[in-house]
Amino acid sequence: MSQKYSSVLLENAVNALATLPGIGRKTALRLALYMLRRDQSYTEGFASALLALRREVKYCRLCHNICEGEVCTICADPRRDHATVCVVENIKEVMAIENTGQFRGVYHVLGGIISPMEGTGPADLEIESLVQRVSDGGVKEVILALSTTMEGDTTGFFIYRKLSPYTLRVSIIARGVSIGDEIEYTDEITLGRSIRNRTEFALNNE
Amino acid sequence: MSQKYSSVLLENAVNALATLPGIGRKTALRLALYMLRRDQSYTEGFASALLALRREVKYCRLCHNICEGEVCTICADPRRDHATVCVVENIKEVMAIENTGQFRGVYHVLGGIISPMEGTGPADLEIESLVQRVSDGGVKEVILALSTTMEGDTTGFFIYRKLSPYTLRVSIIARGVSIGDEIEYTDEITLGRSIRNRTEFALNNE
Repeated sequence: MSQKYSSVLLENAVNALATLPGIGRKTALRLALYMLRRDQSYTEGFASALLALRREVKYCRLCHNICEGEVCTICADPRRDHATVCVVENIKEVMAIENTGQFRGVYHVLGGIISPMEGTGPADLEIESLVQRVSDGGVKEVILALSTTMEGDTTGFFIYRKLSPYTLRVSIIARGVSIGDEIEYTDEITLGRSIRNRTEFALNNE
Repeated sequence: MSQKYSSVLLENAVNALATLPGIGRKTALRLALYMLRRDQSYTEGFASALLALRREVKYCRLCHNICEGEVCTICADPRRDHATVCVVENIKEVMAIENTGQFRGVYHVLGGIISPMEGTGPADLEIESLVQRVSDGGVKEVILALSTTMEGDTTGFFIYRKLSPYTLRVSIIARGVSIGDEIEYTDEITLGRSIRNRTEFALNNE
């Protein structure tokens, strides 16, 4: 849709907003006009929050999670189990797993996933630092919590091979029928795997 | 949903993004992480485009449309019919009408609509400047292109009364069944009005 803007400033702002994922030109225009309706201090606060994030953000030197200081709050917490390391693609997954309240170990954030299509190779990810962490000792289990996609499987397999010289358990999060899903509509690969990997029935099956 | 962020910078950025209309906290987090993945220059360009819009934007002294200089390109265009003024709520409506290619007159942007609920009164809008424009002479018709809502009708009626001392035509855009709508599902007020305001049938009914 080619739209005529009466101002280059407006056009630039719409173009900038429309580069965000999931924001089309129509939404971008709505957002730009919203900013014009608000006080100038609103847009200034908005812009400075984003600039501060991008310019001042730090990453934990242990797990590469976003943090404030040298080490993130999870890695710095003595009550967490530092012998169990959960490997995730990004900090969004750290938040998702933290929200479950089911994990008391620590994390290792890869910063992406191996994807030949997008040109992301093992060297672009924090895999060497994971191997270093294991080689430094103290890690008893590495849990691979990666997406159940081709890229996730490739990345998991690569890490598994890299860790094979060391004595530790490498596990993978359970795959199966999601809670609330109907068997009838579950894809056959998931269903087949969930039958093979069946567990003992328990009344409080968590 | 209370989510734990590992960084105050991230939390501030998510809070800022989530103030935008239609952007929830989940989308805000996705956008913040997207910015972290891009170069720092990306976020800097993004922020400066928004700041430039908010700080440097100018409004046309004739029609109050957003523009670059003193007068907008529409008001400065000698080929437009400056005797026909279309009154709209905001610049979004200017764009929408311009995109139809059906209007060769000029605009008058009110900058809002009379809304007692939101505390917007006639004095907050560019109504006096419209009356002044008409009183200065040269305007033969004022077209009211306002929303078909209570607020739009109130604003239209207020402007109509303000313009009644002057000799000019005050018209209102046609209301009726939208193109592509099914009669069965059209609300009865619209349908009743479209029957009362029926026009001659023509093969190329535009």
